[in-house]
Amino acid sequence: MPCHRIGHHTIEFVHQPRIISSAAVVGPKEGRGPWKEAYDLVLEDALFGQQSYEQAEHAMFQEACERCLKKAEMPRERVQALLGGDLLNQIMAASLAARELSIPFLGLYGACSTMAESLVLGALLVDGGYAGPVVCAAGSHYCTAERQYRFPLEYGNQRTPAAQWTVTGAGACLVAEEGKALARMTCATIGRVVDMGIKDANNMGAAMAPAASDTLLHHFLDSGKKPGDYDRIITGDLGKIGSSILHELMEERGFPIPEGKYMDCGLTIFNADEDIHAGGSGCGCSASVLSACILPRLQSGEWKRVLFMATGALLSPTTSQQGESIPGVAHAVVLEGGNE
Amino acid sequence: MPCHRIGHHTIEFVHQPRIISSAAVVGPKEGRGPWKEAYDLVLEDALFGQQSYEQAEHAMFQEACERCLKKAEMPRERVQALLGGDLLNQIMAASLAARELSIPFLGLYGACSTMAESLVLGALLVDGGYAGPVVCAAGSHYCTAERQYRFPLEYGNQRTPAAQWTVTGAGACLVAEEGKALARMTCATIGRVVDMGIKDANNMGAAMAPAASDTLLHHFLDSGKKPGDYDRIITGDLGKIGSSILHELMEERGFPIPEGKYMDCGLTIFNADEDIHAGGSGCGCSASVLSACILPRLQSGEWKRVLFMATGALLSPTTSQQGESIPGVAHAVVLEGGNE
Repeated sequence: MPCHRIGHHTIEFVHQPRIISSAAVVGPKEGRGPWKEAYDLVLEDALFGQQSYEQAEHAMFQEACERCLKKAEMPRERVQALLGGDLLNQIMAASLAARELSIPFLGLYGACSTMAESLVLGALLVDGGYAGPVVCAAGSHYCTAERQYRFPLEYGNQRTPAAQWTVTGAGACLVAEEGKALARMTCATIGRVVDMGIKDANNMGAAMAPAASDTLLHHFLDSGKKPGDYDRIITGDLGKIGSSILHELMEERGFPIPEGKYMDCGLTIFNADEDIHAGGSGCGCSASVLSACILPRLQSGEWKRVLFMATGALLSPTTSQQGESIPGVAHAVVLEGGNE
Repeated sequence: MPCHRIGHHTIEFVHQPRIISSAAVVGPKEGRGPWKEAYDLVLEDALFGQQSYEQAEHAMFQEACERCLKKAEMPRERVQALLGGDLLNQIMAASLAARELSIPFLGLYGACSTMAESLVLGALLVDGGYAGPVVCAAGSHYCTAERQYRFPLEYGNQRTPAAQWTVTGAGACLVAEEGKALARMTCATIGRVVDMGIKDANNMGAAMAPAASDTLLHHFLDSGKKPGDYDRIITGDLGKIGSSILHELMEERGFPIPEGKYMDCGLTIFNADEDIHAGGSGCGCSASVLSACILPRLQSGEWKRVLFMATGALLSPTTSQQGESIPGVAHAVVLEGGNE
């Protein structure tokens, strides 16, 4: 049996599966942000022509997958698996999209780390020769997430300074063994669930940062790489507070992230005047920014190699009400530029 | 790149990853059932010493994983991934267990198909040489599922004849490339999400049967196998109604399941006098029966080859309230007996 494992947490993709297409569909607020030119569709409103926000979340997820396939001229009948999830109870947006797309479906839940989790498993399916093209996708919706995790928007309650704004958006990537690559996946690190005892559902950056630091540390120890080997170390949605904690933790652990090499999707997706407090969040955040900002820079050669690490806060309304703290998880994928 | 794909939906495991240990922890009602001698632990009550049913569900999931590792004398530090999920919002039982176990965690959600989904992906990680031993697990709890999907138990509402009883139980398997095998995994079929328009959250068998039939049909078409090639074709929790629909659908499609070759975990887990109506359900159902009934028969040689297909009803309280129908999904794994 071949061994494609380096260290305890890290996988090497020998055949370097390619992301050959991607798409992102986002809401109006996201569509006014820095990556506005690069989204495939910006919704006119949060309902996207549907009867409920949950239905809109499903439609958006499906639209991202369909546009991703269309850009690669890939008929859906050829796609051998859809891997993805969202933040709804029982990942209904992804499940309903899978029903409409009729592609064999592996449902995932890693909260806001889902986009990275789907890329890790999708890359593995392709790298091992277990599947032809697969779609990896994730999405979230501000209006459904708020009423699920915190309060219905109709309450109009004030958001705390540490709160993050769940991105209304979905992103999808088509992963295949051949085709013109936006990026190649060369390595992945699977994260552990880490919990430092944060109980505030309005401070998810602090809840996720220790998991991000754990995964990052294991990635460097396993792979022998250093932070400077990457053009960017990109986290999903740590926001202002989580990012600053991550920097401190990595400094303490002897792998400081160099100035100018760090990016957090949640800190770049909205314009500064949008009143989003500590930054964007949600699995749609890293999924949309991956498609609209990261992959284009890898394809153009502006960046040669980045570490894409989406971070998830594993909370539920039930566990929050029962006084549980919020565990975090983070998975990382190394993306390298274009065709060799 | 090697190709381990046979047909569109089906994967071949060239190295035949082994299930080298398993454990099941169940509630008192399950513990009185036909497999009572074979469970690793039967809880004295549904709370398992915890403050809430959700905490009990988490503790049960963790206990199943720990007992599975202990039986194989496998230190948790050597385990490279935990793949699993449950029915709680945001799969909190699995996530909290992953936190305590401190094993790299890939969260899955396939409703009651989760045990098969975790085996498919776990087998893939091991078969491809991407991970050493991995734990695949799933669990559910009657008291948390009822209040989440239907009504809190305190309402005392009458159950309909088509209703199934969510199993209080968790099962875990340790998958590795070597070691004394309870069973070897040789093949898997990833299912599509299929929806025939059932909207009754009390008739999940009918909602899942079309997906089960779709996966089964693709399995036979892809692999060239026939129903008679298996000692048992085992579904997760179709119950009385779903099982009967599956038989009809397979007959119509030209692959009738022979008399005496079929088993549904949900129809065997409880004693007949337990008032469970159409049968057991929940991801803990197939997970517990796998460990307590199926693997021992494969190890003893009573069965040589079975198809283990867990079935999931993809509903959420939100989508039910919004009038959505209930899509189903089913994943199948071929398990073959013991060491060659």
